[in-house]
Amino acid sequence: MTPVVPAAVEAARGLVEPVLREAVARLDPITARVAAYHLGWADASGRAASHGGKALRPALAVLSARAAGGDAARGAVAGAAVELVHAFSLLHDDIMDGDRTRRHRPAAWTVFGEAEAILAGDALLALAGEVLVEQDAPGFVGAARVLGRATRGLIAGQGLDLAFERRDDVSLEECLEMSARKTGDLLACACAVGATAVGGPAPLVSALAAFGAEAGLAFQLADDLLGIWGSPAATGKPVLSDLRARKKSLPIVAALTGGAPAAAHLARLFARPGPLSEEDLRTAARLVEEAGGRDWAETEAKHRLDAAGRHLADAGMPSDVRADFLDIVLFLTGRDR
Amino acid sequence: MTPVVPAAVEAARGLVEPVLREAVARLDPITARVAAYHLGWADASGRAASHGGKALRPALAVLSARAAGGDAARGAVAGAAVELVHAFSLLHDDIMDGDRTRRHRPAAWTVFGEAEAILAGDALLALAGEVLVEQDAPGFVGAARVLGRATRGLIAGQGLDLAFERRDDVSLEECLEMSARKTGDLLACACAVGATAVGGPAPLVSALAAFGAEAGLAFQLADDLLGIWGSPAATGKPVLSDLRARKKSLPIVAALTGGAPAAAHLARLFARPGPLSEEDLRTAARLVEEAGGRDWAETEAKHRLDAAGRHLADAGMPSDVRADFLDIVLFLTGRDR
Repeated sequence: MTPVVPAAVEAARGLVEPVLREAVARLDPITARVAAYHLGWADASGRAASHGGKALRPALAVLSARAAGGDAARGAVAGAAVELVHAFSLLHDDIMDGDRTRRHRPAAWTVFGEAEAILAGDALLALAGEVLVEQDAPGFVGAARVLGRATRGLIAGQGLDLAFERRDDVSLEECLEMSARKTGDLLACACAVGATAVGGPAPLVSALAAFGAEAGLAFQLADDLLGIWGSPAATGKPVLSDLRARKKSLPIVAALTGGAPAAAHLARLFARPGPLSEEDLRTAARLVEEAGGRDWAETEAKHRLDAAGRHLADAGMPSDVRADFLDIVLFLTGRDR
Repeated sequence: MTPVVPAAVEAARGLVEPVLREAVARLDPITARVAAYHLGWADASGRAASHGGKALRPALAVLSARAAGGDAARGAVAGAAVELVHAFSLLHDDIMDGDRTRRHRPAAWTVFGEAEAILAGDALLALAGEVLVEQDAPGFVGAARVLGRATRGLIAGQGLDLAFERRDDVSLEECLEMSARKTGDLLACACAVGATAVGGPAPLVSALAAFGAEAGLAFQLADDLLGIWGSPAATGKPVLSDLRARKKSLPIVAALTGGAPAAAHLARLFARPGPLSEEDLRTAARLVEEAGGRDWAETEAKHRLDAAGRHLADAGMPSDVRADFLDIVLFLTGRDR
């Protein structure tokens, strides 16, 4: 089942996409082509296509501006910058992780080459900064600061993720830290940056950032559960993909470090050289469940969602904006993508 | 012979390096380690070392602030941001181009891995923006705009460079465009960004940018000449390295497209599959010279240097600052690195 995309996301897209397209149009033809493919606007030969992501982060940025009583259009500019950082990170992560598929299509680096994909990611990251600093309204310098810090966090999280691949002693705490940086920081930024851009009050900006950080972790937990038990048709990834890649995702680390008897069995399976067979993968999924990884992740996601809700309740904003925020977060954490 | 580093460069380093070190210290330990190695501050194991570049671009940024009658310390902040973009671009270019050596040391990606080096480059690029937007003085938003445009140009130039590798019909005009973007844009930025940061007048900023753009091309021409006829001890690259890599550098493209009889011979040599022997390389260097590539590049570099000098003369500034600018440019274009 694919739940209906929230109305606030659809509405935001109409504001954000023109900003994004105008920004990408400034790039040189070589990186623009890779960027347009990666963003889902074009196929490999450059013909117009429509494979874009759901653009949930920009929608959060638009709501963030509205929460502060500000202009949605300014939120859309901030949201476009966040989406450019998100796109850059996916483009580079796919290269670093050797992932060949992104949103049901070949990853950009497999189509255009690794060097071209590195360069296009660089271009998107640089463009994100430009989109903010070229605005004259004073709140955008603050927005650029918020986005800069989040980008640094995102990069720190990816650094931990790379380091974890070479270690077999990753603790659950470290794994949560990695997710907080890699996913939470940019989601927190998306939720706070619009309010910052329109000059919203500091307590609102803080509450929105805290809301986004918790929602980001809930989303990551949901995503990690899908990486084991999601359907390939919906996720665009092979079945049991995180197990196949022996990825140290949250449910897997929770299982490995939880002390249940199944954990030792799972660790032996993961330590075995060579690729895991389909039967091994099914066994591994069962062991994660037996060792409590699935329960832990589901409970933790619920706690994070509750915490997000409390931060949202603390933040003063029009009730329709609050409802739209909740819609998006439930969509992010509940959907079977 | 290694000419003496200009005094203005030494003086600027004392202002710029603390800003750079403070910025890099904010990075997570994983990317900070790669960055410190790449910047020459640490060896592969993380021990303090001293292999830094000459930091000519930050010195130009400091002079740029002084040209506008501004505070050298503000120029140093702008210069640190330019140096971070320069460092990012070298880090990623080495990966894209497969270059294994940088400043007489193994390139960072060969030491820490490709993924880690991609990520560290991302971190340096993001940090460059942060360093500027976190400043409260109003000129820094302008500086961030100038640096953003230059970064976009630099990336466009690298895109052309990558594309040229797959083509054997590159015109001299295209090759000049590539160098103007890849080298000229960031040098123009370095020369203009300090004046922008201290709120200098637009005509001064424009003249400084024009000076830097011409100086950048002169530097690239000098660098391309060294890529063929420079000594490995001084350049840190193998002898005849650009010919070995069949790089479409300016003297080589000038030779190939100049219509001299030697051009056809050179083109046949370049079109031959497999690596070129040492004798082939010496023959190729002779053919570039016979086909007029060396003369053209030397003359063109002189013209660019003259043009740079005219732009500098047009820009009103204290005479000691002008003298320092000239010193650095002559060092950049004349030294046998």
